[in-house]
Amino acid sequence: MSLDGFVAGPNQSEENPLGEGGMQLHEWVFKLAAWRKPHGREGGEVNASSEVLEEATAGTGAVIMGRNMFGPVRGPWTEPMWNGWWGDDPPFKVPVFVLTHHEREPLILSYTTFTFVSDGIESALDQARAAAADGDVLIGGGAAVGQQYLKAGLVDEMHLHIAPVFLGGGRRLFEDHTSAAPAQLERTGVVASPSGVVHVSYRR
Amino acid sequence: MSLDGFVAGPNQSEENPLGEGGMQLHEWVFKLAAWRKPHGREGGEVNASSEVLEEATAGTGAVIMGRNMFGPVRGPWTEPMWNGWWGDDPPFKVPVFVLTHHEREPLILSYTTFTFVSDGIESALDQARAAAADGDVLIGGGAAVGQQYLKAGLVDEMHLHIAPVFLGGGRRLFEDHTSAAPAQLERTGVVASPSGVVHVSYRR
Repeated sequence: MSLDGFVAGPNQSEENPLGEGGMQLHEWVFKLAAWRKPHGREGGEVNASSEVLEEATAGTGAVIMGRNMFGPVRGPWTEPMWNGWWGDDPPFKVPVFVLTHHEREPLILSYTTFTFVSDGIESALDQARAAAADGDVLIGGGAAVGQQYLKAGLVDEMHLHIAPVFLGGGRRLFEDHTSAAPAQLERTGVVASPSGVVHVSYRR
Repeated sequence: MSLDGFVAGPNQSEENPLGEGGMQLHEWVFKLAAWRKPHGREGGEVNASSEVLEEATAGTGAVIMGRNMFGPVRGPWTEPMWNGWWGDDPPFKVPVFVLTHHEREPLILSYTTFTFVSDGIESALDQARAAAADGDVLIGGGAAVGQQYLKAGLVDEMHLHIAPVFLGGGRRLFEDHTSAAPAQLERTGVVASPSGVVHVSYRR
């Protein structure tokens, strides 16, 4: 998120899915070899952020995401079917559960299966837990999905990546009343990346 | 500030000047010997936060604060005069400039002079700079004052103290449009305190 708490900039659009300035929040990760390799790209940096990313992905047995993270389509699913932003070989390679109000058959792309869940966040979590076996369930985003799980008291760990950027507006990671406040957490890790990002982890 | 971006909790009142849960944001500092000594109290801890506090105070030649940080009084100054929260010997011991819409004569309490500035933030900054000589001008708060200086492009350095707490509501340090966004900063320091607080410094 930005220093002022946004995970996407103002004026989101299909051309600008992260809003104005929103891509700046992710620059630290796009530069990493640890990100580039699973996305089929060569080169990249190895720095203090590499381990943060590797740890987060290594332990992940399943991913939950909101429909707006899966794609720009709204309303019922219609042809031509939107199959995600990630091409024929999505980088997840673990089961992915997509929260949506509109039913859809599972989508299998190479090593990744997208299951569409239309009966709520608890159902998605149950399915993801079963699919993850011993792995962690990663709530990938976006903000609205994270807020729902946080409010329901279903988040055990939280990993914040704070970019040295002001966005001035957009989508907040934590709106008012996101949490069952006030609540004290345990801070478990702090990593200062040369990119200017601070990675901070918490456990409840 | 809290993880969700608040510097005071919800439902601020005279009995609860930092709002519900707001005191949790400051617990790390009240425990420090480096805070207790200038406030006339004995004992306290020495930890990674001590240096952060000492550096911040050692370089400070003048302080600017909003009237709501100076006291709970609103409207014109009336008898009995409110003379601040800090008793007869305030801990600042440098010139303090209080932004207010209502004129008032300077107040001298031991080693601290409070000057009341009613002609705007730039005037307060000019006066504070002159009074600070080679020292830094610290914008002490509250949130509204910090936001005004940030928006005017007058903040060179920013020190965030992020507490491992959700407040769920209250007064945000960064409202929408606080900054002339988007803007990239240089991150200059990160300190992980055993209290769970993360201290992060930025320079523009």
